[in-house]
Formats: sequence, structure tokens, C-alpha cells
Amino acid sequence: MSGVMRIGHLDLNVLDIKASRNYYVNIMGMDVTREDSDGTIYLKCWDEWDKYSLILRPSDEATFNRVAYKVEKDSDIDDLKAKIEAYGISTEILPEGAIPECGRVLKFDAPSGHEFNLYAKKTFVGKDVGSTNPRPWPFEGRGIKVHWIDHVLLMCQGPEKVMEATKFFQEVLEFNLAEQVCVGPNGSLQAATWLARTSTPHDLAFVAGPEVGMHHFAFFLDGWNDILRAADVMGMHNVKIDVTPQRHGITRGETIYFFDPSGHRLETFAGLGYLMQPDMPTVTWTEEELWRGIFYHTGQENGAFTTAYTLSAYK
Amino acid sequence: MSGVMRIGHLDLNVLDIKASRNYYVNIMGMDVTREDSDGTIYLKCWDEWDKYSLILRPSDEATFNRVAYKVEKDSDIDDLKAKIEAYGISTEILPEGAIPECGRVLKFDAPSGHEFNLYAKKTFVGKDVGSTNPRPWPFEGRGIKVHWIDHVLLMCQGPEKVMEATKFFQEVLEFNLAEQVCVGPNGSLQAATWLARTSTPHDLAFVAGPEVGMHHFAFFLDGWNDILRAADVMGMHNVKIDVTPQRHGITRGETIYFFDPSGHRLETFAGLGYLMQPDMPTVTWTEEELWRGIFYHTGQENGAFTTAYTLSAYK
Amino acid sequence: MSGVMRIGHLDLNVLDIKASRNYYVNIMGMDVTREDSDGTIYLKCWDEWDKYSLILRPSDEATFNRVAYKVEKDSDIDDLKAKIEAYGISTEILPEGAIPECGRVLKFDAPSGHEFNLYAKKTFVGKDVGSTNPRPWPFEGRGIKVHWIDHVLLMCQGPEKVMEATKFFQEVLEFNLAEQVCVGPNGSLQAATWLARTSTPHDLAFVAGPEVGMHHFAFFLDGWNDILRAADVMGMHNVKIDVTPQRHGITRGETIYFFDPSGHRLETFAGLGYLMQPDMPTVTWTEEELWRGIFYHTGQENGAFTTAYTLSAYK
Amino acid sequence: MSGVMRIGHLDLNVLDIKASRNYYVNIMGMDVTREDSDGTIYLKCWDEWDKYSLILRPSDEATFNRVAYKVEKDSDIDDLKAKIEAYGISTEILPEGAIPECGRVLKFDAPSGHEFNLYAKKTFVGKDVGSTNPRPWPFEGRGIKVHWIDHVLLMCQGPEKVMEATKFFQEVLEFNLAEQVCVGPNGSLQAATWLARTSTPHDLAFVAGPEVGMHHFAFFLDGWNDILRAADVMGMHNVKIDVTPQRHGITRGETIYFFDPSGHRLETFAGLGYLMQPDMPTVTWTEEELWRGIFYHTGQENGAFTTAYTLSAYK
Repeated sequence: MSGVMRIGHLDLNVLDIKASRNYYVNIMGMDVTREDSDGTIYLKCWDEWDKYSLILRPSDEATFNRVAYKVEKDSDIDDLKAKIEAYGISTEILPEGAIPECGRVLKFDAPSGHEFNLYAKKTFVGKDVGSTNPRPWPFEGRGIKVHWIDHVLLMCQGPEKVMEATKFFQEVLEFNLAEQVCVGPNGSLQAATWLARTSTPHDLAFVAGPEVGMHHFAFFLDGWNDILRAADVMGMHNVKIDVTPQRHGITRGETIYFFDPSGHRLETFAGLGYLMQPDMPTVTWTEEELWRGIFYHTGQENGAFTTAYTLSAYK
Repeated sequence: MSGVMRIGHLDLNVLDIKASRNYYVNIMGMDVTREDSDGTIYLKCWDEWDKYSLILRPSDEATFNRVAYKVEKDSDIDDLKAKIEAYGISTEILPEGAIPECGRVLKFDAPSGHEFNLYAKKTFVGKDVGSTNPRPWPFEGRGIKVHWIDHVLLMCQGPEKVMEATKFFQEVLEFNLAEQVCVGPNGSLQAATWLARTSTPHDLAFVAGPEVGMHHFAFFLDGWNDILRAADVMGMHNVKIDVTPQRHGITRGETIYFFDPSGHRLETFAGLGYLMQPDMPTVTWTEEELWRGIFYHTGQENGAFTTAYTLSAYK
Repeated sequence: MSGVMRIGHLDLNVLDIKASRNYYVNIMGMDVTREDSDGTIYLKCWDEWDKYSLILRPSDEATFNRVAYKVEKDSDIDDLKAKIEAYGISTEILPEGAIPECGRVLKFDAPSGHEFNLYAKKTFVGKDVGSTNPRPWPFEGRGIKVHWIDHVLLMCQGPEKVMEATKFFQEVLEFNLAEQVCVGPNGSLQAATWLARTSTPHDLAFVAGPEVGMHHFAFFLDGWNDILRAADVMGMHNVKIDVTPQRHGITRGETIYFFDPSGHRLETFAGLGYLMQPDMPTVTWTEEELWRGIFYHTGQENGAFTTAYTLSAYK
Repeated sequence: MSGVMRIGHLDLNVLDIKASRNYYVNIMGMDVTREDSDGTIYLKCWDEWDKYSLILRPSDEATFNRVAYKVEKDSDIDDLKAKIEAYGISTEILPEGAIPECGRVLKFDAPSGHEFNLYAKKTFVGKDVGSTNPRPWPFEGRGIKVHWIDHVLLMCQGPEKVMEATKFFQEVLEFNLAEQVCVGPNGSLQAATWLARTSTPHDLAFVAGPEVGMHHFAFFLDGWNDILRAADVMGMHNVKIDVTPQRHGITRGETIYFFDPSGHRLETFAGLGYLMQPDMPTVTWTEEELWRGIFYHTGQENGAFTTAYTLSAYK
């Protein structure tokens, strides 16, 4: 076992840092663990042990900067640098500390058009419940008490870009393809893909769309009852919900889509779904059943799924 | 304790009796307990003990005929006849057997414009799990395994009719007003009311609309997890869903709205909500928070709530 | 509708009033709404609207004083006084204020050997969530956030006393018999009975045992997930649990039995169970399946069900 | 990613193959996918894709034969053979087909005293829901509908053997140590360990006991509600339950322990627990909080946890 372990952090620009802070701290239940003089805040969830999983930068646009994945060993940085460059993609290594609290970082633009960072070290903080005789959840917690950042769905310009990105993450970073939506002649095009390094259904996903950006990122919750509780909390706090509690056909996940104060779409994703494994047969959703895959109950388009997303900040 | 106990049965016209039968039997999980030569079928849920709670009549229109409530004692028929007539509403007593499997029936048109029947006796069948050392639920069951018919929401022509109907059911049939939506100048008009005889939040409800008809009737389910399972079963069987799993602010109920093959709106309503009591303060929803009351999570109109309903059959 | 509505309050003696206060307030989530100079505290749950549902008196013994039920109308006091005395039981009417915050009280000893109080008025406080556009649950709440006191199970000396008490509550106070455990020759003896005035499975229950006392009283929770959360909270606070999360066959309720700091057994009871109605066939559990009725999963005796209970204080 | 992926199958002797078949098929919901002339049956769960995960052999003793884990690549067999032998443990390679439906198998006795098999290939069957537009669960399913075999807890003779086994699986097979119970002077002895290759809390666990054997193996269920449903089904079928629905402190899993007709202890384990990762800090349970770790709600010994287990068949 080596290479990419899981999503490490997201780096986003937000419009109103004060409103964002209140939202992520008091409604989502995250903690601010670092704050820079430019107003940038770093947050972690109670069930995460590294220093942060979310970077929010004060800005006049609500955009996506980059996503970072954590790799198992520092030597993975070198191994993956070689593999990525051999694949024809240029990379850069940032020195320790260039990304706050992190060791050296391997930076590159994936074929999807998004900046990815890989790192092996981040300042350790520990879970809120500790690691000696821990409680199963923090009795003192705020709001939705999200567990961890689970995955991100990135938007690429058209199915070809989805396919290029998927191929790259499968071949070079050894992600496994859990599910795919196949469209076009004889289902020859991947309109969306779900990729895993952990044994959950996805740590990273791609979807075809008009622009390069982020469709949403997701927080993990235990199960369907936490979804109800989360939706209740959202209702109490007037959170703008895109799609109310729902079953995904894809991943089997239980979900809510909603927006943060800047308009970034978030998800609470609940349940293991299934045990993802390298030898699990990839699940394919056909063009006819695409919406059944996305929203299992109605099988129909819902909310702003295809029209609202976060643009990438960099050109 | 005497007078109205609970909803007894609904009497509806359906377009395709075969499709309806399959739907209510295999997806909802009801049993056909009687069938007339004209094709009318009578159905009951596993947790009900009387012969039937739903009458479906083959027709070329999908309309509402009437709703029946069961009273505790046969003498209640006479007492309530006197009270209703004293209120200025004419009534009729149908002899035993006029409504199949039922004792004599008190028939009248409520101020809402709907025909109501009251009866004290119906052929006893028993719950599917029996009454000696019963299982908590039937291991052999079909589909959603609905427990019982819980309530009906009737549509009246405008708030005045809602108010007239509510007054009548409070004063004459001694229903208690659990919740109300108040609109108009200083909240002077009841746009919708929820009325109870049991200690659940409602056995009967009224809503203002353009026509006299039925907005929906509801099946009871235990809780939020049964709601997910029900929605999954609906997805598997391509049931047309109006509103996916949701929390009502009003009644606190967990809900799905969906349609039967004729277009009648149904609900699966889960949870006790709260213990309704005669002395519980009536909950009031203001015009501004009306949609928060109906769909707590978004606080916004959703589905075809205000546009789709079942017309009354009789003129 | 008139007569008994529901359980109104329990009056108990506790050993350590400070520990009890902390327990009921911070772990159960009740509020202290009144405190007398002798140290007696009065508590209510968030979903109750009357001033209190629990009286805890500092004492050197942990005993049961009495239980009070609320009736619908003040005139019920007189009607029920007449009925009870006609049944051969002497009664007393306490003037308004004799029981703090209550109107006049009808006091009598039931055939079970327990003191019962009936009252029609208690100072109104309102639910924590209010009655205008209320939230479905209080975002700011403590611990288990119990909804209301749901029922009490009283212990009588032997089946004959259970039968006498049951007959009295059925005939005089018009409770309905939801379930019974029948033992002895041909099942001729009621070893336990569950009686309802609301449409929940029980508002009062009796069980045969060696002494006159209280087996437990129960708090209502919504459902099985609240049971898990409650048990987690108990584990976090080292609450002494008698019986871990479980399904009752009787009532179908989801349950935990546990003890307060004085050793009074409490229950968190979840779910509606079923819609109790006067015409619902009484469920009978046979002697062979008695433990299946009590603990459905194992069908076996568990915890201290038959050996631990609260003695009555008065002789 | 390479090496061990997950538990592949368990190989057990059972006393009454007919009763076992009925139990695993109709109550657990598995399918018999192969049957040998000697009466041995092979079973799979609906959510597994390989031919079988359980081998039951007719016998006059209820014993444990071996457990097999699936590795990712056929070349892992050779790599791991070399590593295991370098560690000082002798191995054997069985040719393809020696274990029915499997490719070649690497066989060895672990320091725990148990026979382990590693294989890379097994006949593919597919999930019951297929892999094109799949339903989230099989509408037609039986009983508890277990998803997959999740893990096994093996019993070793004393903490030293637990420590030896743990060291071997960490160092040679690259399992990660999720949790441990530390006893003895300064917590110097591992009395139990939980080891993972997937990102669930455990794929393999060891516990100290008097004999070499199997404490239990576990089926996966989605969550706490499936636990209730499973326990209800067990109650309906008179399954012997060891420990009713419960939260583990260790792994946070929601659980039931129960026995199959031969007396093998099984578990239904629900929930992801947490995202296990190589860099997650190992959770340590101290001797004082050992039972809080095992049964979080009571923090006390329960059932036959320390006294009932399955002996190993081979000497």
C-alpha cells in the first residue's frame, strides 16, 4: 500500500469570510484551526486528525483554487512525480511550508484542467474524541457535526476531458473506477466517473459540463438519520438547499445538496454505500437511466445539478 | 370517550382498476379483501383490523367519492345525527349493508363540500400479525408494507370554506385543532387546518384551493427509515413521485408525496410527530412561513402541491 | 371526549437531589421550572406545555409517592369522583394550589394500591419550540432531549391485584386494554396489562410482583435512532443501564431500561408502536411467550426486570 | 496498491448441514452457489461478486478450518510467499482448483495458530443487483439480506500470541493497526487488536483467550436500522442471540452477536465506523475501559463474549 490515500484538503475562494466562518463552524460544526493575516482560515472536522481539510480565502469571487490529496509516504512524492511526468504532465515540487502546515507538495494540472496537490505530511492535531478510550462522537459538538471531507466532484469541459482525466487517475495514480455514466454512440463516452483509492465508492469524481470547475464537495455523515438531522438543521438556519434528502443510485449514497454563503455547492453524503475494491465490477449507468443514477427516487433531473457550480479560479 | 375514532375508509374512482390493484397490492403492500361484480375492490393494510380502508371503483374519471370515519358506538350515529342536523346540515341514515360490510351509516355533506360517512360497525378481519403473541411486523409482506390509512387532506374552495369546515368539525364532531395556517389581514383567515380525534397530529385536514376535492390521503409508516425504504421501492417501480423524502414543519411528519396510477396523490407519513391532546396549544403558521411549514427543509414550494389534486366526483 | 387525557406527572422521592437534578437536566434534557424551599424540584420536558411532569423530593429513601393524570375538563373531576365512589373507592378533593401549580385534585387509592391524582388544570408554560412557526425540535437542547413522560408501569402484589386494577381503570376511568399477559390455568390470570386513553399503546400499565411500587416510568423518543443516541449519551455519562436497546414485543416499542441516581428505573420508549383504538383487538401474550413479549429479540429474561423496582412510599 | 484486499472466505465445519443451509439462506439471506458431493456447501451474499464467501462442511464437530483473504494480483502470491518465508514461516502453494473455484493458493499458519489462505482469483459471479443501472438493494431478497462477510475475530492463546500475530500482519502483510486493547504492566500487552487493509476499521482482529479458535465472523449491514430489522428477524425465527443491538466503542460499529445452529458466533456489524487510514492514530483502550470499548452502552461484560467460541479443527 502506498500512493494516494484520500482527499486532503480543498482550497476555495469565498465572498464573505465572516459569513463563511460562521457557516462552517456553527452550522457544519467544523473548527477553525489556523488563521492567516490575510484573513484566510483553515478548518477541520471533528473526525479528522490532520490540521485542516478546508482552506477558505477571502475574495471577491467564489472560485475553486485546487484540491490536495494525501499520499502515504514522502517517497510517494518522488515516485508519483516521475510517473506523472512520464505521462507527459509537467509537475512542480513546492518546499515544506509552502502550503501551510504541510511537507513538500507535488503540484500539477490534471487533464481535467484542475490543479492538484499531493503531500505526505501535515501537522497532526488528532480527532476531537482523542485516541484513548474515545467516545463514538463528540458530546459537545455544533450543528451538523460533519465527520470529514469525503470527496469532490470536479467539472470538466465535455466527456472527452472526463475520459482523459479518468484515464490519468486510473493509470498513473492508480485510482479504481467504481462507477461511470456512459453516453454517446453505444455508450462510448464517459460523461461522469467515480474513482476510489479508499474502499468507499469515491474519493474523486468527474462530470462533463460547460466549464472547468467544482460541482460540489462532500462531507461524510453516518447514515440516513444524520441526513434528516442535517436537513432539519439547514431548515432551522435557512441554508439554501439545492436537493433535499435523497438516495443516489450511483454510490447508493444518501445525500443532500446545498450551498454555502458564497454559492459553493456542498453535499452531506452518508453511508458506506458498498465496499469498493479493485476487483469490484465497475457499475455503468446508461444514458437512459442517467437521472435514476443521480436521483434514484424520481429518476429525474432536480435542483440546479447541471446549471450551478463553482468556476476554477486560475487560468 | 365516544364519537369519531379515526378515518375508516376512502372511496375513490380509478381509471385502470387492474393497474390500481397491482399498485396498491404489490407496491403499497395492501390486501384485496373483497371484490364486487362491478369490479370494485376493497383493500386493507396489514396493521388494520377492519375489513377494508380503501374502496377503488373502476371509472373513466379519477375522482373522490367520499370519506368515512368510524365512530365508537352505534348510538353515536344517533347522537351525531342530532347534533349535525341541529347545526343546520341535513343527514341521511343508510341501513346496514348499504355500504358493504358496514352497519348503518350516517351520511352528510360537510361545509367543506365533501360527502362524509360515519359508521360504527365494519366486518372484523384482524391484523395480519394476529393478536396472540404477534410479531412486530409481518415477515411475509409486500413492497412498502404500509401500516394503515392515517388521514386525508381535503381541498375546499377558498379559506372561508376551510374555516366553515373546521368550525363544524371542531364544534359538532369534537375534533381538536392541532395546527393552522393563517393568512389574510392579521392572519384572520385559516388557509389550512389540521384536526385530530386520535392523539396523532391529524386525522383530517383541510386546505384552501380552487376546487372541491382531495389533495391526498396518507399511509402511516413507522419512521424516517421506512420513508427511505419506501422511496427506494418507488424508484424501483417507477412510481411517479411528487415530493421526495421531506420533513413537514406542520405535524413534524416525515413524508413522501407521490401518485397512484390514476393520478391520486398519496403520502407516506411517518412518525408520531407529537402527542396531540385537546389542551395542546394550537400551532399557527404565518403566511410568511407557510412553505417552511409545508416543507421544512427548503421552506419553499415544491412539486405540484398547489396544482395537482383529485376532484370530487359528485356535484 | 372527556375524562382522563394522559399522564400528568410523577411524584418521587430521591436520595440525592443535586445528583438527580444534574441527571434529569443535563443527561435527560429536562428543565427545572419550579423549586420549593424544602428542596423539591419540578421539571418538564421540551415537548410538554404544562408547568411540570416530574416532582423530585429530597429524601432518605427512593420511593414512589403518587402519579397524576390530567383530565380534560374541570367537571370531569366531579363526574369521576362520583363514578369512583360508586365503585366503592373513597376519594378526596384537594383544593386548587394544594398540589403546586394545579387546580383542584381528585385523590384516591386505586385497587393496585397506588395513590392516583386527577387534575384538570396546571399552569401553562408552552413547548420550548413555541407554537408559532415552531422548529421540529429544539436546536439548543441538552443530552437525550426527552420529549415527554409517556407512561408508568406500576407493580401490584400478584395477578389478582393487576386484574382488580385493570378492571377499575377500564370500567371507571374508561381506559382501553391494549395488551395483556395471561398466565395461570388456561391463561385466566392477567400478570400484566397495558392500558390506553390516548391512541398510543399505553398510558398506564400494571405488572404483578412481590410489592406495591413502580417498575419504571418512560420518556418518549421519536424512534430507534434516538434510542441509539440516548444509549450513547448514557454510555458517555456512565448511566447504569438495565437493558440495552431492545424491541418490546408488547407495544412494539423500542426501548432502553436504565436507572436514575436513586435507583428508580426509567425507560426511553420510542415509536408510536401502533394506533391504539377502543375497537383494536386486545393483544394477548401467553405464559410461554411472556419473555418474547417483553424482550422480543431474545425472548428471554434480561437485566433486573423482575427484581429491581421502586417501592411505594406510603402505607 | 497490491497485496491483501479483503477477507475472501471462511471455511467452517457444521453439525447439521441442512439446518445450516436453511439458516444461512432463509434467515441471513445468502445464496448457495455450489454444492459438493460430500455435502459441502458454498454460499455468497447478495452484495459480493465472487463465487462464495462461506464454506460449510458437514461434520460431527463445529470447528474452524481456515480463513482466506483475497490479494489483488496473482504476482502478490509470489511476493507474499517470499516475505512470509523470510519472516520464518513456512508456506505452501496449492495449485489452481485445489480450493474450488479459486486460482492458486498460498497456505500458511499464522503466528496466531490459525491457517490462512491467500488467493488472487475466484470464479466471478456478480452482485445480485448487477452492474448496469443497479438497484440499491435487491427488492427480492430473503431475511436479513446481509451484504458481505466483513471480518473475522480470531482467538489466540494469550496476549503474547495476539502480539505475535499482530506484528506479523502489520509487518509482512501490511495491515494497519486501527485499535488495540492494552493490558498488563503499563499497558504493555495487546489483549486484542483490530487490523485493516480496507478503509473500514477492521478486516481481521485478534483477541486473547484460552484456546486457538474463532470468536466470531461478521456480516456487514448498512446501519442501525438494519440492526433492528435483523434482530426482529432473529426474534421471529428464534435465533439464539448472544448480545442484543449494541454500540461497540471499539470501531464504533453497531452490532448484534448471535449463534448459528452449530454454535458458531456470528455478528451483524453495521456502519462504516470511521475512515480507517494508514496514518490514522491507533486507538488504544485501557484495561479499565476494556468493556466500555467492547459494549459502549453499559461498559460491562455481557453475554458469552469470553466463554463461547469456535475451536480450531486442526492440530
